[in-house]
Amino acid sequence: MNIEIDLTQNLKSKPNADQIAFGTIFTDHMFVMDYSTEKGWYDPRIVPYQPIALDPAAMIFHYGQTIFEGLKAYTTPDDRILLFRPEKNFRRLNLSADRMSIPAIDEQFALAGLQKLIEVEKEWVPKAVGNSLYIRPFIIGTEPNLSLAPSKTYQFIIILSPVGSYYKDGIQPIKIHVEYEYTRAVRGGTGFAKTAGNYAAAYKAQEKATTEGYSQVLWLDGIEKKYIEEVGSMNVFFKINGEVITPELNGSILEGITRMSIIELLKGWGITVIERRISLEELYNAANCGELEEAFGTGTAAVISPIGELNWGNRNIVINKSEIGSLSQKLYDTLTGIQTGKLEDLNGWTVEVK
Amino acid sequence: MNIEIDLTQNLKSKPNADQIAFGTIFTDHMFVMDYSTEKGWYDPRIVPYQPIALDPAAMIFHYGQTIFEGLKAYTTPDDRILLFRPEKNFRRLNLSADRMSIPAIDEQFALAGLQKLIEVEKEWVPKAVGNSLYIRPFIIGTEPNLSLAPSKTYQFIIILSPVGSYYKDGIQPIKIHVEYEYTRAVRGGTGFAKTAGNYAAAYKAQEKATTEGYSQVLWLDGIEKKYIEEVGSMNVFFKINGEVITPELNGSILEGITRMSIIELLKGWGITVIERRISLEELYNAANCGELEEAFGTGTAAVISPIGELNWGNRNIVINKSEIGSLSQKLYDTLTGIQTGKLEDLNGWTVEVK
Ligand SMILES: Cc1ncc(COP(=O)(O)O)c(C=O)c1O
Ligand SMILES: Cc1ncc(COP(=O)(O)O)c(C=O)c1O
Repeated sequence: MNIEIDLTQNLKSKPNADQIAFGTIFTDHMFVMDYSTEKGWYDPRIVPYQPIALDPAAMIFHYGQTIFEGLKAYTTPDDRILLFRPEKNFRRLNLSADRMSIPAIDEQFALAGLQKLIEVEKEWVPKAVGNSLYIRPFIIGTEPNLSLAPSKTYQFIIILSPVGSYYKDGIQPIKIHVEYEYTRAVRGGTGFAKTAGNYAAAYKAQEKATTEGYSQVLWLDGIEKKYIEEVGSMNVFFKINGEVITPELNGSILEGITRMSIIELLKGWGITVIERRISLEELYNAANCGELEEAFGTGTAAVISPIGELNWGNRNIVINKSEIGSLSQKLYDTLTGIQTGKLEDLNGWTVEVK
Repeated sequence: MNIEIDLTQNLKSKPNADQIAFGTIFTDHMFVMDYSTEKGWYDPRIVPYQPIALDPAAMIFHYGQTIFEGLKAYTTPDDRILLFRPEKNFRRLNLSADRMSIPAIDEQFALAGLQKLIEVEKEWVPKAVGNSLYIRPFIIGTEPNLSLAPSKTYQFIIILSPVGSYYKDGIQPIKIHVEYEYTRAVRGGTGFAKTAGNYAAAYKAQEKATTEGYSQVLWLDGIEKKYIEEVGSMNVFFKINGEVITPELNGSILEGITRMSIIELLKGWGITVIERRISLEELYNAANCGELEEAFGTGTAAVISPIGELNWGNRNIVINKSEIGSLSQKLYDTLTGIQTGKLEDLNGWTVEVK
């Protein structure tokens, strides 16, 4: 398929990414592609960034058939533009699509579309250290029909947003509230998919955490409320007695691309990484006997978010004196180094936008 | 607040509701009201039915902050227009709003807005027996912002759609597939809220049921996969040994307005109704010893959907010879009689649109 390009006549002025709030400024163009049951995916195009006009009965408004992805483009010191494992994001988009009864996209073609879009918007990729271009591909069901059935039409859209560095004053370990009342996801549900409904459903717990002075929520499994699943919208890792443990993928946990990269890095460094169930009780005991060495969340936004404190009921654990641990720091430096082209990419993870 | 009215110059032709597919034809106008954190809900208006134009970064597309309701307007034999317990729908909309971190609406004002809209569209309320005007109020988060936080702006919209009778050839008992793999909702999640994400998440199970020759899914609890929760998007009732049992509201079940009306009707008739947990095992045993007399789903769409057959693994139960039971029939006749003004409304459930 050929990608039509329609360039805007009115270029926006480019702000300093560090001075804007995350996800509020968008570039001049977007990538759009349509789907219908008769034609499949068709009419891929790059058009001026513009409102989407939908019938009020469009299914996205009523039954939540929508999925998304999140990744970033970085500028290297020698002014090249790199994407980090973007093929994994389109792979995951298709996993989400399957769960939400949305038709699959051609992953390679979507990646080609993204590359073309970034080429058009290359002036928008921030150059300052720590800044990047956030990429948001998403698919929405657009058929105007109130029947409870998958939409017969969809739009696949990619928008781009320059973002500042997550850690403006250096990495800050965060305080975490363990959530018992609200559940993020459960076996048989949509937790492993990146679909809209999972996120708004998490706001109530986040609100509680914020009110109580914590910056994120630790999610427990929905069945026994014993096992650790994720932190906010990040995967989570614990270093206990020299080994690294992360909750195993069980259907209610999203498989983060940062998570999979960290597992590969650690294994490459000869560190034992175990994917298994881990209970809050086990963590508490490990902390009490001094074996809980580090804990951190992982995701595209912050890459590594050290956890300084975990709180539930009248229990509280402080991890590594609320300082960033040496393994967390090394993972952060290595991953951001590879992503921004400052370190050699030995794993072939980065993809250059020409 | 004053409701501005802007009438269209181009009226659509009105189809025969019985000849159109559910939820595909909409009336000439819609009700719209905006929200911002500074102004609260403002600018209520009735405008020509038209597309909604949203920034591609609007939160509804990404994080699923959206809720909806569903109710109907009926024409009486003497040509009045009745709504059935509409205040309960706006009550429930606010319960859903709270769960999804959406600001509450003024329930009475929303009902007044709906009444005004139906007044404008009164020619669209079908008169043929069994036909009605389906009403879809919904709220969407509209702020263009990719941050994970509640939207600062919303739209509340009501659209109307003439619909044919659910049972074109008389009531047909349905065959139900019991779902073990997929979960609709779980304690601490969003099951009790009418929010978009719950619905698309259910398509995979429905697809499985359809493929295997069943018309709906019976949902089990997400924790033990033992207790019955709902059927498709209906509440469910069982008549066992003269008593009527329906799953108790536990946070993962939607509180249907049909459900609450049936409970009140049955109690008024002196029939014992018990809201409690009921397991599939208990149902199986009751069926085997001949005590399972009737089973039916309840909801605005079909009112009563008799369940003729339930299937899971190698177990199958046929209920009341797959015929509609006498209690199911009486409930159907009474509820539809009240809704359409053919029976006296002793409970004060109907609201006339003047
Ligand atoms: C629920 C959830 N968990 C984990 C992650 C981390 O995934 P990734 O490393 O691909 O960014 C994300 C998102 O980015 C997420 O939304
Ligand atoms: C999940 C679910 N359960 C039950 C019902 C029945 O509710 P009501 O009787 O108010 O139509 C509905 C919707 O209408 C629903 O969406």
